[in-house]
Amino acid sequence: MSRTTTDLDALAAALRAAIGADRVISDRQQLRTYECDGLAQYKVIPALVALPADAEQCAAVVRACVAAGTPFVARGSGTGLSGGALPRADGVLVVTSRMRDILEIAPDDERAVVQPGVINLAITRAATPHGHYYAPDPSSQQICSIGGNVAENSGGAHCLKYGFTTNHVLGVELVTPDGDRVRLGGRAPDAPGYDLLGAFVGSEGTLGIATEVTVRLTRLPESVRTLLAAFQTTDQAGAATSAIIAAGVVPAAVEMMDALAIEAAEAAVHCGYPPGAGAVLIVELDGPEPEVAAQFAQVESLCRENRAFEIRIAADDAERALFWKGRKSAFAAVGRISPDYIVQDGVIPRTALPEVLRRIGELSAERGIRVANVFHAGDGNLHPLVLFDAAVDGETVRAEEVSGAILDLCITHGGSITGEHGVGMDKARYMPRMFTDDDLDTMQLLRCAFDPDGLANPGKVFPTPRLCGEVPGRHKGVHPAQEAGLAEVF
Amino acid sequence: MSRTTTDLDALAAALRAAIGADRVISDRQQLRTYECDGLAQYKVIPALVALPADAEQCAAVVRACVAAGTPFVARGSGTGLSGGALPRADGVLVVTSRMRDILEIAPDDERAVVQPGVINLAITRAATPHGHYYAPDPSSQQICSIGGNVAENSGGAHCLKYGFTTNHVLGVELVTPDGDRVRLGGRAPDAPGYDLLGAFVGSEGTLGIATEVTVRLTRLPESVRTLLAAFQTTDQAGAATSAIIAAGVVPAAVEMMDALAIEAAEAAVHCGYPPGAGAVLIVELDGPEPEVAAQFAQVESLCRENRAFEIRIAADDAERALFWKGRKSAFAAVGRISPDYIVQDGVIPRTALPEVLRRIGELSAERGIRVANVFHAGDGNLHPLVLFDAAVDGETVRAEEVSGAILDLCITHGGSITGEHGVGMDKARYMPRMFTDDDLDTMQLLRCAFDPDGLANPGKVFPTPRLCGEVPGRHKGVHPAQEAGLAEVF
Repeated sequence: MSRTTTDLDALAAALRAAIGADRVISDRQQLRTYECDGLAQYKVIPALVALPADAEQCAAVVRACVAAGTPFVARGSGTGLSGGALPRADGVLVVTSRMRDILEIAPDDERAVVQPGVINLAITRAATPHGHYYAPDPSSQQICSIGGNVAENSGGAHCLKYGFTTNHVLGVELVTPDGDRVRLGGRAPDAPGYDLLGAFVGSEGTLGIATEVTVRLTRLPESVRTLLAAFQTTDQAGAATSAIIAAGVVPAAVEMMDALAIEAAEAAVHCGYPPGAGAVLIVELDGPEPEVAAQFAQVESLCRENRAFEIRIAADDAERALFWKGRKSAFAAVGRISPDYIVQDGVIPRTALPEVLRRIGELSAERGIRVANVFHAGDGNLHPLVLFDAAVDGETVRAEEVSGAILDLCITHGGSITGEHGVGMDKARYMPRMFTDDDLDTMQLLRCAFDPDGLANPGKVFPTPRLCGEVPGRHKGVHPAQEAGLAEVF
Repeated sequence: MSRTTTDLDALAAALRAAIGADRVISDRQQLRTYECDGLAQYKVIPALVALPADAEQCAAVVRACVAAGTPFVARGSGTGLSGGALPRADGVLVVTSRMRDILEIAPDDERAVVQPGVINLAITRAATPHGHYYAPDPSSQQICSIGGNVAENSGGAHCLKYGFTTNHVLGVELVTPDGDRVRLGGRAPDAPGYDLLGAFVGSEGTLGIATEVTVRLTRLPESVRTLLAAFQTTDQAGAATSAIIAAGVVPAAVEMMDALAIEAAEAAVHCGYPPGAGAVLIVELDGPEPEVAAQFAQVESLCRENRAFEIRIAADDAERALFWKGRKSAFAAVGRISPDYIVQDGVIPRTALPEVLRRIGELSAERGIRVANVFHAGDGNLHPLVLFDAAVDGETVRAEEVSGAILDLCITHGGSITGEHGVGMDKARYMPRMFTDDDLDTMQLLRCAFDPDGLANPGKVFPTPRLCGEVPGRHKGVHPAQEAGLAEVF
């Protein structure tokens, strides 16, 4: 049912009364600013935008939405790549960008407490004078918010060694889908009761809105060394990656780019990678100096054994930054060599890398669609960039087919349809390829328990926005005797 | 309501039909074997015991219980210390000890797939020839089952560096409380959808029974070095611990024992710790040899700076085993110096160690109850052993008061009522001291979603076994307009 103008006016008035007129946007032109997140192929203008200043205001916004029966979608910086923060035309977009205070930096306990709108890199900047940093480093770390990172369980190049957002979040205060404020987790390493924190991290706004996040701070490594190795083929680079991991080295990062990705990066940022490379690896080690020194030598010789034809070792921070510049700009850079592209995100077991890359090459050749490959090779997280020209008849469809076929490859190799970008709006339709109905129903149990009315980011994550009453519950018949018996503990 | 003999006979017959007569126990004497777990002060004889041979049989047992409205409790090896596997007199105990196959050891992917009854140490034994092991190491690792470890999210001495069970479980197949078989997680590092795996690990049998567990294997370290440092006081040992962590060293383990714990260990296993020590630290480093060598020297000098009066470095595996023997036998050893004792388990921020130890000393003196302290000093996980003699009038009560007061200390210092032993039956009553009603209701939402009839391990984890209908749901009113609107995604 579509909402009437009167309904919306009443909700806007309720929101203004609750959090102040300057924190509610209803002007159509201003609303357009929020029509998409980082996945720009989908655009929806929200009915209203609310910018709460604190947790209590955030709860007030949610309660007003619940009272009006209006869906709401949370948004941090809007850099997500799966459409997780795509607005609803009939809903309120709750933007956390005015909740941007770092509340505590506690280096002794290796903890920081921040509001959800705080930028990822700002935590590191605040912690660095104390000898610490915040480890998860999505490419968008200069602009993405920690609240968005929590929603999408964001990764980054250094997650091979350090893990994803979920490994660095110790506690969250949130507003539940009915407007209650609760805490999950805390400072202690293993809180009793259910670890709902783990379920909340990566729940993409469907279980509530984080209003305060306690994160783990990581000690700055004593030493960081980076090398760039050029190979003739991705197979050789893949074999080098496997050899490094098999040797028991856990690099901070192992990143791979293929020839097309290198070509794009050169065109965009002139990173000066070795000419003629069919693949480059960037391998970074960090940790105590004696360990890094010993393992770095080992990595270098494993690259040579696997036929690297050129190895460069970063002499200083400037050269290290140049190695990374090519890699970190790769997504945007393909815009230089293709009018349109899809950033794909999938995971395979590391051991399946060579076979999956060959199959991607075959798919590309069969369908006449170029695919540039950029990936976190160490943990098998692929980011194929599927290139196309929307102006050419049929190319968009073929590109989407190749992109989908790559996800199928990931699934058939025992991997996953997303490594770090989330399901969002974009991949909800792929969920049944990865999970059985029973598995999805089990997840839906949690969503329905938190949000039986389906107001919190409906249409995201799960394929069919079915009503909670339709979910086959665990409740297959009431046993009055048992219900009475529950009061006896023994 | 108590169950009649006829009801029980019918259920026993249904179970025998489903899984075979030799897998169901109803003889009172045989049932007595299962009357408690590692927390022997509580004893309850179960109505029936079922020993399913595989996942399908396990599901059949649960379905039979559901059909009969009978509660069920899962049990692995029964070594838990919080009474999580304490039977119900009116219920079925589902014992996983006949599901003991290691299904797969995949060293290349660093994964093992095992049945729930597999013993913790058996995974390491199977993985060692491939250069790997299973990292979480509870003191009971020679007899505890992986299913029980998953239920309780077990820890161990080496969790400081390697994390708890939850950090090493990648996927679980389980039977839900209504008898469905579902999978949570998998081999890929970051599965899409809700991370219910994290909530399942540590759910103490209240969300279902694990029937297959996929765990991470860890590469055997190149080098392991262990030292034992003796101090006059626990304050000095605590200061040394803080100095080690502050220096950025992450030891595999930092274990502390105070004078009374040392006395008990000496009496029991003659471990030969330095005479006159008010506290000993065992510090173990593992990893690549150059790192271990450099950091070991650093640890040694930090112990000396903090006034260790004797430092012993394990010359070989035999001496290393002797250092650990005293520590690992400590719980049982206090039986040599006290007729009765309570093993407490709590967590505090590492920085609060000296203050909390002083307060424990004061409590002990005030109430005339001796307390031996054994703990994972590196991560602030205390195991105070509260000693008493049940034959002396009033001592039991005073010991329980001291034990409870120690938990209060943990809470007021921002810690937790359990570090690794779980809530189980024993600590359910302390949950309201740590969580608000809203926090507990939020957890209860999950339990009710999975198990609305309250048949899966009722009476454990949560303080009041309240009926799911009484939990204030997130559902505070139905909005027909919204329900209709759910079908429109935008």
